Amino acid sequence: MIIVTGHVIARQDTEEAVERLAVEHVLCSRAEPGCISHEVSRDVQQPLRFVFVERWSDMAALQAHFRVEASRKFAQSMASLCHEPPQIDIYEAEMAGAR
Amino acid sequence: MIIVTGHVIARQDTEEAVERLAVEHVLCSRAEPGCISHEVSRDVQQPLRFVFVERWSDMAALQAHFRVEASRKFAQSMASLCHEPPQIDIYEAEMAGAR
Repeated sequence: MIIVTGHVIARQDTEEAVERLAVEHVLCSRAEPGCISHEVSRDVQQPLRFVFVERWSDMAALQAHFRVEASRKFAQSMASLCHEPPQIDIYEAEMAGAR
Repeated sequence: MIIVTGHVIARQDTEEAVERLAVEHVLCSRAEPGCISHEVSRDVQQPLRFVFVERWSDMAALQAHFRVEASRKFAQSMASLCHEPPQIDIYEAEMAGAR
């Protein structure tokens, strides 16, 4: 499985636009092949920081996601609305337990 | 590296208590050996859902974290404040890229 974590930091004046765009992106992504989960949340300690957590079946599915035109537009729009472009970390992950 | 994701769903009447407890737990956890990051955020689509994302250096560090008395108390308190006990998934993870 692939886990992706990422975040963007909105500006005071772009907070609502970032939230709207983020939800739209999450909903579209969930419908893509290989997307196990995709969600966006707001850091409790820093509410302008939007946190993304995604699970994909494999790297091919994630690479296909990155190639989707809407994903590229999302990244570009976020970069223009935020202090800096989205920061994204990609992990190969295996479930090791649950509680 | 170990990645832990988890969430709890607060009740309307426990929202503030859950947030306070979550931040306290995150701050304590960050000071523990092997904790790379530990954060809590609120699901944009379901704000009563608090999302935790943690990174630990290895499984031994995470197991030590679970044994800390404060962690056990945190889980118990959360269970009493939320609809159900915290749900936690644990992954062995390797960085596979960044963007």
